[in-house]
Amino acid sequence: MTDFFAGIPQIRYEGEGSSNEFAFRHYNPDEVILGKRMEEHLRFAVAWWHSFAWPGGDPFGGQTFNRPWFGDTLDLAKLKADVAFEMFDILGAPFFCFHDADIRPEGATFAESKRNLEEIVDHIGTRMEGSKTKLLWGTANLFSHRRFMSGAATNPDPDVFAWSAATVKGCMDATMKLGGANYVLWGGREGYETLLNTDLTREAENAGRFLQMVVDYKHKIGFQGTILIEPKPQEPSKHQYDYDVATVYGFLKRFGLEKEVKLNIEQGHAILAGHSFEHELALAASLGILGSIDMNRNDYQSGWDTDQFPHNHPEMALAYYEILRAGGFTTGGTNFDAKIRRQSLDPEDLVLAHVGGMDTCARALKAAARLYEDGSLEAARAARYAGWETPEAQAMLASSLEEIEARVLAEGINPEPRSGRQERLENLWNRFV
Amino acid sequence: MTDFFAGIPQIRYEGEGSSNEFAFRHYNPDEVILGKRMEEHLRFAVAWWHSFAWPGGDPFGGQTFNRPWFGDTLDLAKLKADVAFEMFDILGAPFFCFHDADIRPEGATFAESKRNLEEIVDHIGTRMEGSKTKLLWGTANLFSHRRFMSGAATNPDPDVFAWSAATVKGCMDATMKLGGANYVLWGGREGYETLLNTDLTREAENAGRFLQMVVDYKHKIGFQGTILIEPKPQEPSKHQYDYDVATVYGFLKRFGLEKEVKLNIEQGHAILAGHSFEHELALAASLGILGSIDMNRNDYQSGWDTDQFPHNHPEMALAYYEILRAGGFTTGGTNFDAKIRRQSLDPEDLVLAHVGGMDTCARALKAAARLYEDGSLEAARAARYAGWETPEAQAMLASSLEEIEARVLAEGINPEPRSGRQERLENLWNRFV
Amino acid sequence: MTDFFAGIPQIRYEGEGSSNEFAFRHYNPDEVILGKRMEEHLRFAVAWWHSFAWPGGDPFGGQTFNRPWFGDTLDLAKLKADVAFEMFDILGAPFFCFHDADIRPEGATFAESKRNLEEIVDHIGTRMEGSKTKLLWGTANLFSHRRFMSGAATNPDPDVFAWSAATVKGCMDATMKLGGANYVLWGGREGYETLLNTDLTREAENAGRFLQMVVDYKHKIGFQGTILIEPKPQEPSKHQYDYDVATVYGFLKRFGLEKEVKLNIEQGHAILAGHSFEHELALAASLGILGSIDMNRNDYQSGWDTDQFPHNHPEMALAYYEILRAGGFTTGGTNFDAKIRRQSLDPEDLVLAHVGGMDTCARALKAAARLYEDGSLEAARAARYAGWETPEAQAMLASSLEEIEARVLAEGINPEPRSGRQERLENLWNRFV
Amino acid sequence: MTDFFAGIPQIRYEGEGSSNEFAFRHYNPDEVILGKRMEEHLRFAVAWWHSFAWPGGDPFGGQTFNRPWFGDTLDLAKLKADVAFEMFDILGAPFFCFHDADIRPEGATFAESKRNLEEIVDHIGTRMEGSKTKLLWGTANLFSHRRFMSGAATNPDPDVFAWSAATVKGCMDATMKLGGANYVLWGGREGYETLLNTDLTREAENAGRFLQMVVDYKHKIGFQGTILIEPKPQEPSKHQYDYDVATVYGFLKRFGLEKEVKLNIEQGHAILAGHSFEHELALAASLGILGSIDMNRNDYQSGWDTDQFPHNHPEMALAYYEILRAGGFTTGGTNFDAKIRRQSLDPEDLVLAHVGGMDTCARALKAAARLYEDGSLEAARAARYAGWETPEAQAMLASSLEEIEARVLAEGINPEPRSGRQERLENLWNRFV
Repeated sequence: MTDFFAGIPQIRYEGEGSSNEFAFRHYNPDEVILGKRMEEHLRFAVAWWHSFAWPGGDPFGGQTFNRPWFGDTLDLAKLKADVAFEMFDILGAPFFCFHDADIRPEGATFAESKRNLEEIVDHIGTRMEGSKTKLLWGTANLFSHRRFMSGAATNPDPDVFAWSAATVKGCMDATMKLGGANYVLWGGREGYETLLNTDLTREAENAGRFLQMVVDYKHKIGFQGTILIEPKPQEPSKHQYDYDVATVYGFLKRFGLEKEVKLNIEQGHAILAGHSFEHELALAASLGILGSIDMNRNDYQSGWDTDQFPHNHPEMALAYYEILRAGGFTTGGTNFDAKIRRQSLDPEDLVLAHVGGMDTCARALKAAARLYEDGSLEAARAARYAGWETPEAQAMLASSLEEIEARVLAEGINPEPRSGRQERLENLWNRFV
Repeated sequence: MTDFFAGIPQIRYEGEGSSNEFAFRHYNPDEVILGKRMEEHLRFAVAWWHSFAWPGGDPFGGQTFNRPWFGDTLDLAKLKADVAFEMFDILGAPFFCFHDADIRPEGATFAESKRNLEEIVDHIGTRMEGSKTKLLWGTANLFSHRRFMSGAATNPDPDVFAWSAATVKGCMDATMKLGGANYVLWGGREGYETLLNTDLTREAENAGRFLQMVVDYKHKIGFQGTILIEPKPQEPSKHQYDYDVATVYGFLKRFGLEKEVKLNIEQGHAILAGHSFEHELALAASLGILGSIDMNRNDYQSGWDTDQFPHNHPEMALAYYEILRAGGFTTGGTNFDAKIRRQSLDPEDLVLAHVGGMDTCARALKAAARLYEDGSLEAARAARYAGWETPEAQAMLASSLEEIEARVLAEGINPEPRSGRQERLENLWNRFV
Repeated sequence: MTDFFAGIPQIRYEGEGSSNEFAFRHYNPDEVILGKRMEEHLRFAVAWWHSFAWPGGDPFGGQTFNRPWFGDTLDLAKLKADVAFEMFDILGAPFFCFHDADIRPEGATFAESKRNLEEIVDHIGTRMEGSKTKLLWGTANLFSHRRFMSGAATNPDPDVFAWSAATVKGCMDATMKLGGANYVLWGGREGYETLLNTDLTREAENAGRFLQMVVDYKHKIGFQGTILIEPKPQEPSKHQYDYDVATVYGFLKRFGLEKEVKLNIEQGHAILAGHSFEHELALAASLGILGSIDMNRNDYQSGWDTDQFPHNHPEMALAYYEILRAGGFTTGGTNFDAKIRRQSLDPEDLVLAHVGGMDTCARALKAAARLYEDGSLEAARAARYAGWETPEAQAMLASSLEEIEARVLAEGINPEPRSGRQERLENLWNRFV
Repeated sequence: MTDFFAGIPQIRYEGEGSSNEFAFRHYNPDEVILGKRMEEHLRFAVAWWHSFAWPGGDPFGGQTFNRPWFGDTLDLAKLKADVAFEMFDILGAPFFCFHDADIRPEGATFAESKRNLEEIVDHIGTRMEGSKTKLLWGTANLFSHRRFMSGAATNPDPDVFAWSAATVKGCMDATMKLGGANYVLWGGREGYETLLNTDLTREAENAGRFLQMVVDYKHKIGFQGTILIEPKPQEPSKHQYDYDVATVYGFLKRFGLEKEVKLNIEQGHAILAGHSFEHELALAASLGILGSIDMNRNDYQSGWDTDQFPHNHPEMALAYYEILRAGGFTTGGTNFDAKIRRQSLDPEDLVLAHVGGMDTCARALKAAARLYEDGSLEAARAARYAGWETPEAQAMLASSLEEIEARVLAEGINPEPRSGRQERLENLWNRFV
């Protein structure tokens, strides 16, 4: 036991009446919602990078957190893991997520980094034996080191492609060894700074080939988890190839991978692409590629990824409603890709940020489930499109422009618009949140 | 002859030294650039809607223009067409574009609107006989009338789908009759205001089916032009399905139409989607779906479609450079989907806005062509990716994660980053614009 | 009695348990919150323009609403007023707001418009006698007619300044006659489209002089209400002079009017200026110029003024918390400068949009009041700044850079940062909303 | 002599025909424009921080530049200074700018940092003796170190205020010693992350008091330069108090400092605040507070401060036109607060980025000067407002609402709008750029 969280109690459900900061007011893991335990619905994961590796810097300032495990040795990396599992226990977090670079010290060579990763994975595996916390997903950090400055799979230098491929193999191995439910790819440097020096076609083709290799390797090693891509429009690059759900869908179709790969969708990335979070979720569900979510919050007035803990439950309920409509998570879950503010220096801040996030998600899920169970919204939606269920409408879809014109002329069709009832549906919504 | 443009001379090329407002300083139609006349490169089109039908309103104010042809009769529609052709002659515009609603009065029924359209198309056909100006593209206005308020092809009401299909048929007939080089679809209302009342899956499937009918009809009537979709992210809807180039590509792939349909890409719509114009052009070219452009300018500080005449030639040169790299226009061209400001009341304003737009495009094209001819930029790009041309790199692409890892370990690969030289390339660029 | 709202009952408070669409679940006018009736806290107003005059158009489409009172006669204007008061009664709305152009037909001359206004004001006055609904504020529409296209007080043409001044006089007279609590100025066209044709200095000086005349006239006629300016950053203009709270404050200081004029602050305008609504309210309160609010909601992904009815109560609670901290409204109130979506065609939509808006405001107010009463947040804020209350800190503020440097060196001052506790405060917040 | 720039020649003017990367094509320091040498017009400054201290990191990646002077010793700081002056000589840069943190190693205590600064200032002073390069401005870095995470002058902890005040004193001393022409304040952390923990009123009052101390100290030591504030809307904070020109003007008026302090205006910060750069310049000139500029370029599709070297001369000409209209710089100048992209690893990239920036500024200045000399634009502007020069218009400004209404009625005033001629003025503009 480290003493980092000394004095912080295990967080338990106390109900809405509680004013105890160190308690859940809404998240009751064993409460059954729509036939499933809340814990199984939400599948919360703590993100290793933001919670344990991020030093608190921003573009205008450096480290604010002074963590006893900061440094670049295996011993410190193990201390970091020990603290992480202590927090998982405090929170009752069912899952965590990691990048290789979060958990192991960087080596001087690929071989050394690989050995470091393997040693830490063993250490984490040992810790997992004594814990209920599992691995939601692993991933490779192919963006922080200067070697990736011009891309990983899309780098002009084939040696960087090679390094990246070898790194992903190692991270997939680690994920499988730790029983991960998914493997995620985020193309942080797969994009460009200026078109002037960029060969778009070649970069996309290399990215497609890289993803095919990842899928092939998954099948080869018998990894049962889901391969996920995380869309983001820009930042750090001027333009990133995995812009949003629709863009990634087109990419998957282009390379014939739309049955093999799903999406990990983040609220902040949706916002930066000009979409609501619920739009991205609904679209992915509609296209059959909804996988998992990063549940954070972006500041609406800031034009970069602020990655804050979520706190607006009516808005979040819109997201969980789409997830419920899609049948809920299978391998996916709710990862907090969220960081405490760089002024939130205390261990309590780290714990309570997660408590607040988990509680708000639970509140949102319950609201969404109540409305879903009520059925009024789905009934209204079905009624709006009921005309399409007639044989005439279906026949029209099977006909042609000329036949349709003939019918419009013959029948004197002159459609009268009907109310879309948006405010009434918003009121209905508000009755449940 | 109407007297609307009384006193305004025909616009001719006078060269850079000219200070005559009513002359071109850069646009010299017969000047040969990269083996082709400038007129054939640029293929300018005047947009009927903004130039002749728009009354000058905005969300906070009504009509500012008092045009003698405003009103809802066939005679006024013919007067409008006569004035239009006078302006085409003044400018030497090789092309124009139209929606049905721009050129004909709305009828009380579909049949009456159809007759009105046919009569005006005959009138325009007659005017074209005496003119050098041709039709770049026609399109249907499926967004202004209240019947389209909830969508056209994606409307919850099948009768609106029917009306829309019949309307598109008529507009395709009109386009073919007038010898149009392309037919455009813009999904102004194909999108949603709120997810709460929207069935995304059904709407997309209906839109896919609608587009297939359009393609089928094109082949049936033997229309030789290109079918084009114009992407736009939002406005008027909260979300529009044809968000950007990547989104439309995914849509076309989903419905197997990526060989049948190309894109008409607008600068302002690119900007609103969070992309540079040149990005959208380069991406479309890379995906084989670059068709035509709407060359306007959006205000970078305004969050809606300002549709101004273009005026920044170095920025525009980036666009024409991508078009030249893609081999230039085939059926497409440069349409000014641009409106004079609502304070620009005078006939001179309308003419001179086009003069400025055409001249700036010409200047941009010439700059882009000089750089393209010089070859330095393409040489720098090729050099950056030269490593991928080696047999080793190509072999790696055909291999697997495991084989690559083995090689990284065996050869001790440790890539050293190389400068991306962005500023040097920007300086090179600036030598030519 | 018209029959426009036939079948729609009067809306009454039924409590949270109610599932009646036509009832309030949170708004209970007589419930006492922090010592004041809820109705007196919130002071709701219905906006004549959006609810009764707006035809449903947007930049890509025309009228969708077919109201029996649309048209340009005095009789129709009276019918419109009768319907308006019927809705005020249905809602129990304590206030309404209007522009001259919303309530009277435009005349062919200034004199005719003036007479029209006077006649309608008499009619409205008569209706008010039989109603509990009062006037929150009146204002002049100095933006819709083409004469204002280049500005009202800032127009290059002195005759437009004259017209505008005369119009404002008439609207102030009308507001006073109807017992209005405030008079509002919104500079919809006070701004520019291009700097190239704009004389910023002259325009600002004329605007300052215009405002001084308004203040003088207020005192002359003994109007007891507050003069309010409504900030907005852009739309319809590229740049508008009343950009945001801070900008208007500087303008008032420049012309010595900061004691005479307060602000009417709108959520959507705050957002478009890059601020949160609560920021604008807190800043105005801090500067002593908080007057009234326009409580609507802007879509965060749309770059224009969407003016939707509010529906996110936790976010709105942040706004009411700032209003409570500032002591609540005096002459101001909560105006719904919100329009139903153009697809919301039915009379029910209009009523229920207001019901939802009022209810969400009430819910937000109650949450804000509970937290304010609890005092924890204010205590945390005070504790954070407690160091400034020491004599040493106050002495430092009265000293100089040299004295401070001497003390830093002498005392070896080396400040250690303390947690800002943002997430803990957000959790506290969420306990109350 | 270090060998960092080995092989890079001194940059000289060779004229537009030159294709030499290492030459100016437009910047000819001795060329006389509007009666002043180009060098004296533009007054270029190199920014120490971006060019010599920035390691190339971004929010998703660390250091990319490996500079021999990176490290935290006085010797390395002197090496950095030596390299800096070598680049100043290569470029013929007339000025540089610095923060304390750019030039000296951070000490363990305030006293040690102070001694380090003094030692480096002596070293730089020595280097300046052998150089033509002068100091445009100095400033204090009150944002990078964790002690400033909650603000400097606006910190909740008075000790941070003290530290900041003492630091600014030292930086003002250094600036005066090195003959600086201005002293700049940028409130990078003067703002807030969340309103929940913020006392807006106290923070603003402390900021006002701090600024007064700076002004007092300036007068005490007889510093002849200008005190400048640099506005920025957000980043790093959610909201920063020095949002834009209008906001800072209001702040200065509030504390009676509008005669003492001017502004340093940055293109990227203007953009992030929703303004064009030329707007901010024109407004500052109109308010009498235009001081100096940071001439960089922000990516229009990225929502953060990209700080790129400028490269679009027509856009930049709009900025220099406003500067010329305002009479040109007095103590201010053109600082390149611009950083090479993190992929631009080579010493050549650093030099050539400045060459490109200087050249584009020169080209923009020359275009602006030609148009200014031509006079057509100013004549058009004057003509548009000519009506205001009449005695009647001036009398109206001195009258009242009632008198104006009487005149409107008596004279039947009914203003007819006149064209704003925006496109014609844009064409005129384009004739000169």
